[in-house]
Amino acid sequence: MALGEFDLIARHFTRPVRRSPLGVGDDCALIAPAAGMQLAVSSDMLVEGRHFLSTVAPERLGHKALAVNLSDLAACGARPLAYTLALSLPRADEAWLATLASGLHALADRHDIELVGGDTTAGPLNLCITVFGEVPAGDALLRSGARAGDDLWISHPATPDEPGWLGEARLMLEIFRGTPGVRTEGLDLDRLRLAMECPQPRVALGLALRGVARSAIDVSDGLLGDLGHVLRRSGGLGARIEAAALPRSAAILRQHEALQLECLLAGGDDYELLFSADPADRDTVSALAARAGCGVTRIGALGAAGTPLEVVDADGRPLATAWASFDHFLSR
Amino acid sequence: MALGEFDLIARHFTRPVRRSPLGVGDDCALIAPAAGMQLAVSSDMLVEGRHFLSTVAPERLGHKALAVNLSDLAACGARPLAYTLALSLPRADEAWLATLASGLHALADRHDIELVGGDTTAGPLNLCITVFGEVPAGDALLRSGARAGDDLWISHPATPDEPGWLGEARLMLEIFRGTPGVRTEGLDLDRLRLAMECPQPRVALGLALRGVARSAIDVSDGLLGDLGHVLRRSGGLGARIEAAALPRSAAILRQHEALQLECLLAGGDDYELLFSADPADRDTVSALAARAGCGVTRIGALGAAGTPLEVVDADGRPLATAWASFDHFLSR
Repeated sequence: MALGEFDLIARHFTRPVRRSPLGVGDDCALIAPAAGMQLAVSSDMLVEGRHFLSTVAPERLGHKALAVNLSDLAACGARPLAYTLALSLPRADEAWLATLASGLHALADRHDIELVGGDTTAGPLNLCITVFGEVPAGDALLRSGARAGDDLWISHPATPDEPGWLGEARLMLEIFRGTPGVRTEGLDLDRLRLAMECPQPRVALGLALRGVARSAIDVSDGLLGDLGHVLRRSGGLGARIEAAALPRSAAILRQHEALQLECLLAGGDDYELLFSADPADRDTVSALAARAGCGVTRIGALGAAGTPLEVVDADGRPLATAWASFDHFLSR
Repeated sequence: MALGEFDLIARHFTRPVRRSPLGVGDDCALIAPAAGMQLAVSSDMLVEGRHFLSTVAPERLGHKALAVNLSDLAACGARPLAYTLALSLPRADEAWLATLASGLHALADRHDIELVGGDTTAGPLNLCITVFGEVPAGDALLRSGARAGDDLWISHPATPDEPGWLGEARLMLEIFRGTPGVRTEGLDLDRLRLAMECPQPRVALGLALRGVARSAIDVSDGLLGDLGHVLRRSGGLGARIEAAALPRSAAILRQHEALQLECLLAGGDDYELLFSADPADRDTVSALAARAGCGVTRIGALGAAGTPLEVVDADGRPLATAWASFDHFLSR
């Protein structure tokens, strides 16, 4: 970046650190996990045109860049501690940077975490956040802990009025793309755009599910594709998803069935937690979710190793759609 | 990134982790610092055209992306543990990726660290590495610990034959730029290119200097600019650098004096350690550096708060050059 890099960073991104032994401004940041804690780390890179539109409000971009990383901590059941931001900018637009920073800081404050370091450079717009959380040694929720017979659950907002239901981010993307067949009459586009641009990471739910969920992943690349990661890492289990059980918002329900399923099962950018648990813990899971401020819905169950991943209709028949097999979605 | 992202990552970047509780392939990586240790974290983003030329060999690019981050750990006296890689790629060129990975892995192996996570996406070429190291609580070398009267030291290779002396990276850049007045006759351009593209992070020296150096920084933006950070964070100290004491390689000595000083004092991409220490520890510092496999040279001393940062000639007179003041370099 050209003239003024240090000034700009100092002005908009540096705030006093409260918890970390050393924050922005030295060669490294220092983080001190409490005794017995492991540090959970995740790094996500957001590129213009792929992860956000050039027209996104910078405040929402700041929110989203941090939210997708917090969602990874949530999926591990880790408590957020701190984050670093590496930023490549085509030009030093101070008003834009200030708004970006406000979006970041607002979400960071909500989760009581702080920016501890980073990097700024000139270049095509790119945000890379690395987030740090702590989790008691051995307690992290993993993709590899699922067992045959587990219930399969998905999180969602607590009420129908809240934006960010499964598939809504993808639906908004299809509207931006002008995809034929998308029904837009009567839709609240501001709400759908919020779903796409301001995902709410399920941090409280992830923490609540420690010791209860047997496996967890956050849905960022589409439900079936991400479920595939869990199944493979849990010894090649199968799964049966009941299409009728999938939580569907009013906006999703307005679409034709094929598009509904595409948004729900292969949507991407959902940032909900997909997790499995012992059927004996059904009431516990529901109670924990309510206390964590979100909803959860049981959408199916896991099958023995070697059985397929199926989406079935109300009569238990596999749906004859592209979504009946997850293999296509591994490489979105 | 399009088709095959997961395959490509698995093939070239995923290796079994040996030390971290959980490596690549879950939502987060888990890192477990030993009891009493703080985690040192640094994140650097490399953009094509700014941090490397499009013609760089991918193996060297992999080396450099990790090296500049390890250099930050070195400046804190932290022992490297692990790193994450976020990568934006214009296309999935498998041979290129394999070579990039080999450069990364080679340097990682040399420092006994492992890749524990990351992200891959389609977009303009961009590498963002976050590196993790550990340092006993309270022992990190900081920019803020310098005192008036400290010797000022710079590291360099152990022998004149090794590439990577102060200013050589900048000299190579000027040659690539075709800057008039650069003397190229008799220069070993392969060696100079190595200095620019394959910096050697002074990790062993940083570890050795714990408890001895009072302040340290790695020189990435030019010696005077980076010294300015140390002086400001240490209470506004001054400094006097003896121009004649600056370590100069044969390639640097072939240039006219103004270009020599520009390369030495405002070069950038040097990745040497600039540190201060008690004059009573002069022999200790030299002995520690020798054991760490590199050389160190005393180039001046720090002055009281409020005194200037000066570069002086053999008679102690401030040089009447642009480099006599460091203010210009804060915003390179």
